[in-house]
Amino acid sequence: MAIEHPYLMFLGDAPDQLAAKVADGVAKWRPEWCLAQFRLDGCKADLGLQDMTMEEAAAAGLKTVVIGVANRGGVIPDSWKESLLKALDLGMDIASGLHNRLVDIPEIKEKADALGRQLFDVRHPSRGFDVAKGSKRPGKRILAVGTDCSVGKMFTALAVEREMKARGMNADFRATGQTGIFIAGDGVSVDAVVADFISGATEWLSPANDDDHWDVVEGQGSLFHASFAGVSLGLLHGSQPDALVMCHVAKRDHMRGLPDFQLPSIQECIEVNERMGRMVNPDCRVIGISVNTSMLDDAEADEYLQKLEAETGLPAVDAFRHGAGRLVDALG
Amino acid sequence: MAIEHPYLMFLGDAPDQLAAKVADGVAKWRPEWCLAQFRLDGCKADLGLQDMTMEEAAAAGLKTVVIGVANRGGVIPDSWKESLLKALDLGMDIASGLHNRLVDIPEIKEKADALGRQLFDVRHPSRGFDVAKGSKRPGKRILAVGTDCSVGKMFTALAVEREMKARGMNADFRATGQTGIFIAGDGVSVDAVVADFISGATEWLSPANDDDHWDVVEGQGSLFHASFAGVSLGLLHGSQPDALVMCHVAKRDHMRGLPDFQLPSIQECIEVNERMGRMVNPDCRVIGISVNTSMLDDAEADEYLQKLEAETGLPAVDAFRHGAGRLVDALG
Repeated sequence: MAIEHPYLMFLGDAPDQLAAKVADGVAKWRPEWCLAQFRLDGCKADLGLQDMTMEEAAAAGLKTVVIGVANRGGVIPDSWKESLLKALDLGMDIASGLHNRLVDIPEIKEKADALGRQLFDVRHPSRGFDVAKGSKRPGKRILAVGTDCSVGKMFTALAVEREMKARGMNADFRATGQTGIFIAGDGVSVDAVVADFISGATEWLSPANDDDHWDVVEGQGSLFHASFAGVSLGLLHGSQPDALVMCHVAKRDHMRGLPDFQLPSIQECIEVNERMGRMVNPDCRVIGISVNTSMLDDAEADEYLQKLEAETGLPAVDAFRHGAGRLVDALG
Repeated sequence: MAIEHPYLMFLGDAPDQLAAKVADGVAKWRPEWCLAQFRLDGCKADLGLQDMTMEEAAAAGLKTVVIGVANRGGVIPDSWKESLLKALDLGMDIASGLHNRLVDIPEIKEKADALGRQLFDVRHPSRGFDVAKGSKRPGKRILAVGTDCSVGKMFTALAVEREMKARGMNADFRATGQTGIFIAGDGVSVDAVVADFISGATEWLSPANDDDHWDVVEGQGSLFHASFAGVSLGLLHGSQPDALVMCHVAKRDHMRGLPDFQLPSIQECIEVNERMGRMVNPDCRVIGISVNTSMLDDAEADEYLQKLEAETGLPAVDAFRHGAGRLVDALG
């Protein structure tokens, strides 16, 4: 049950642009789906889209209100509820990336049920999964892995999908986090799945497919991250990847949220990911490196990436600056 | 909130001894807590304990009815309910290892609430956890890891705890699965925790302690198991172990539940566990090997273990045949 587009991007009364980070990502990668934005009084975020009321959005044929914004203190204010109830009345579905579930708000749940509208709480898995089987399945898979959290794994996977599609390849981005799910219209927040089913959920997300089909799977966390490595390993095993892209960030003092931990070296991280990946797919190999070099100027970035290429023998790009062409080339 | 003992072991109408496997394990490791059993007509399991009615058990001062038996088809029959309601009336708590939750059975939940009795659904975490911090905490930890599922990790951990206590060491078994929780009276079913919190739940389970204290942590799964490796890695990181015991089974055709997968070599499994463990504790090392050799005769078992010692340079025991003395010796 995919989220229907086009989307009305709900920004509520976001206090700043950062609070609308998710909506920003969706609008960036799916401009053809994000046709308008909805803002309440006091909203300080702006996606640069046309502002519409709920009535205008429904009249324009928009299908789903996408809440891609953080709410203050985890509370959904009455002003939001009123707008969302109106959206349901006017025939639109609602998809939310909030921690609080829409289905737990009685007025919203009751109206949606009564009118036959869909509510998507994308941070929360809405179905059960089987335990992973591990058996080799047809189709090919590429997974973005990383030295740390928040190093550009989703961005890299989307850039790879875009490049593959531009080349006429048979490919689908597979989303494992909330922003990715809005972008794909479907997916599973794997970090919210019950631990026993991480790999099983990932198998479900990237099932048997045509021999020439590529699932481009969004990674999460890092095998080296003391908080989330279990999620990363479950994803690595469940996606059974033929290819990995190692994602990294050029400058960071310590691992995200873990002041006691340095980032691992890229080489070490490649070695461990290949070793763990080969348990389920003997052909698994890192085919390239994608580095967020936004904190470096052009010359510094070039130098950084050239050094990395010399050290690893792999293509190293900043997918944001250079696209993913050389990564897709490396699939041979 | 630990489960209070002594226990009345509830066997219901178990069709055979295997259906009471959990109760069997609890009675074996905590004979001083398991003072009686409760059986309904047709029960084919027997723990060799005194049979008591609910009235007799309550009069004898038993505190908790422990359901350590599988129910047929996941349905709790009326005959069970009647006995359990009586137990509540008579002042006892109930702890269950069933997939179905006691708290989801309205009559039982309502009566427990009204009377102030406790219901423990040990397969289901009853609290939330924080994301793991990863910071080094005082106290020492030993974790049982394995080449596969069901190779004796709980048994080995309990044998290590028993040996440590016999030597007057400051030690506590930390349970991560249902049988272990009944044995410890407390713990977390880590495979049922939301994926993001596997390591955090394990940190909660084995918190900062005295410098000479050992947490003896029950492992789950295997880093090489395509279905459950994420759980195993989260446990490895969250328990931040100083020492690992590698558990194995002498003869097995393929990994449990995965016909396509051979078991890894012990050597390989040691290497990978140490590598992943050292991400959070640089001192982490495998100190010994524990093999289930129940399918070998004494001479074969000795030969098998001697060969393993020669290959690995580590003490190799069958904790069931030989106890865990040589494993505890190896902690130096």
